[in-house]
Amino acid sequence: MDKTFISERFQELQDEICSTLQEADGKLIFKEDLWERPNGGGGKTRIGKEGSVIEKGGVNFSAVHGKTPEKILKALKLEEADFFATGVSIVLHPFNPFVPIIHMNIRYFEMSNGTYWFGGGIDLTPHYIIEKDAVFFHAMLKRVCDEADNSFYPKFKTWADDYFFIKHRNETRGIGGIFFDRLNENSTRKNKSELFDFVFNVGKTFCPIYVELMKRNRDSSFEDHHKKWQKLRRGRYVEFNLVLDKGTKFGLDTNGRTESILMSLPPQAHWDYDHIPEENSKEEKSLKLLKKGIDWVNFEVNA
Amino acid sequence: MDKTFISERFQELQDEICSTLQEADGKLIFKEDLWERPNGGGGKTRIGKEGSVIEKGGVNFSAVHGKTPEKILKALKLEEADFFATGVSIVLHPFNPFVPIIHMNIRYFEMSNGTYWFGGGIDLTPHYIIEKDAVFFHAMLKRVCDEADNSFYPKFKTWADDYFFIKHRNETRGIGGIFFDRLNENSTRKNKSELFDFVFNVGKTFCPIYVELMKRNRDSSFEDHHKKWQKLRRGRYVEFNLVLDKGTKFGLDTNGRTESILMSLPPQAHWDYDHIPEENSKEEKSLKLLKKGIDWVNFEVNA
Repeated sequence: MDKTFISERFQELQDEICSTLQEADGKLIFKEDLWERPNGGGGKTRIGKEGSVIEKGGVNFSAVHGKTPEKILKALKLEEADFFATGVSIVLHPFNPFVPIIHMNIRYFEMSNGTYWFGGGIDLTPHYIIEKDAVFFHAMLKRVCDEADNSFYPKFKTWADDYFFIKHRNETRGIGGIFFDRLNENSTRKNKSELFDFVFNVGKTFCPIYVELMKRNRDSSFEDHHKKWQKLRRGRYVEFNLVLDKGTKFGLDTNGRTESILMSLPPQAHWDYDHIPEENSKEEKSLKLLKKGIDWVNFEVNA
Repeated sequence: MDKTFISERFQELQDEICSTLQEADGKLIFKEDLWERPNGGGGKTRIGKEGSVIEKGGVNFSAVHGKTPEKILKALKLEEADFFATGVSIVLHPFNPFVPIIHMNIRYFEMSNGTYWFGGGIDLTPHYIIEKDAVFFHAMLKRVCDEADNSFYPKFKTWADDYFFIKHRNETRGIGGIFFDRLNENSTRKNKSELFDFVFNVGKTFCPIYVELMKRNRDSSFEDHHKKWQKLRRGRYVEFNLVLDKGTKFGLDTNGRTESILMSLPPQAHWDYDHIPEENSKEEKSLKLLKKGIDWVNFEVNA
């Protein structure tokens, strides 16, 4: 269970996800940019544009190494250490406003002093919240968590609610999902190999989830006002990623590859001053569900 | 020269700028939202949409007071103090891609311990850089600076170059302008009344500058690809404001009024993975001029 093994499995996962998404979409083609990090390592950025379902999507792999950034050293009270970090990151922006935006990330970090941890998660950002899809999404996440440890889903679901919260809007970014960081022997009851299995299974569950959500909603009919709402919600996605997301901030602060980091941004976004949805509209109903603490697995779906 | 006098002059300036812009645009109408700050003071947010030149614009006034936020107290090594802050902030996003985005801010801050300062500036973000307009813009700023002090323009021009720099893109946001902060007797050779006059004159020079730039370019013809470039540049504007702008960050961190703070965001923005303009295109030429340290006042304009 060394870093080479982990980064190889992550690369295989990237390949598998790209081909599954291309097939499910029917028109999408990922183009690859190989890049090198000046201070060590590199990545494979794969971007697909203008598919039949996915308007813009990125499925990135990276494995970088070098001197540990000051920020992390300080937080861990270390003087100096080399680091190695590898991960897979995905953001998909669909064309149809009834298909949700999805984000997935799994990552592994280790340092020359022996410290290591896994992190990651999957979260969903529907422009319009379709309750039965939200229940399906969370049930799938609960299943993959429960296979590893019954304590994981409630803990990581709450973590996602807290992490993907846009304080200045008093809204969650979407319906959450799971988020976890710094998992190792000290923070869990699992050993390294069990934690790898869990994280890798989270990665493996991405396609079954999103392919199903694509299938359910790709042919939903929509009008201009639905597209307008989608672009407003994409604006909120931009606000979260640029103001609050720690990964984005860290990447930009440490001279990461800007185009790979900002592949998460939507193709377009829209801002309208003080936009308030009409009473009892689908938009208002969705907005009311952008709250922390909703028990989606046991949510009673309105017919 | 007390805070009431300053905030009254600022309000008059807001009124004057709004009516001048409405007249120059011909179709634009500002709508006002009065708001109160729960912890003291409030503001007048004025937003104009879908004018004949201005697609979306905000001209905001605020005067707020209360306990000084922790961040400022720490920076000044103070235990506790009340503060008062008043300012006028403007961002205008024009419809025609050949009319530039403009930003202006003047502000006054004082604390119960007697500390005070003025800050502000004007900067221009053309989607397409028109060299003679850039020279005109900087010459106007130099004039208003020189009237107060010959050292101001070079100092505040460099400050703007440094402030409006998007590090993760290695680009300036636009062609800069002037930016200044913490001006008082200690940091300049001016007294409070002279500094107020300077800052107020910066405010007064906003309309002569922008009305001229509107006039010069409002009827320029454009095509779809120019609008696409405009939206990409608006995307960079969003990146600067959400990732780097200190005023935005401070406002969001301290529970400011979100809709007033984010009125600076464009009506739409566009992100395209790794977009590289064609060689020798207008887009590429503009990109090459988004650099620090260009001496715009003495720039040799190509015919």
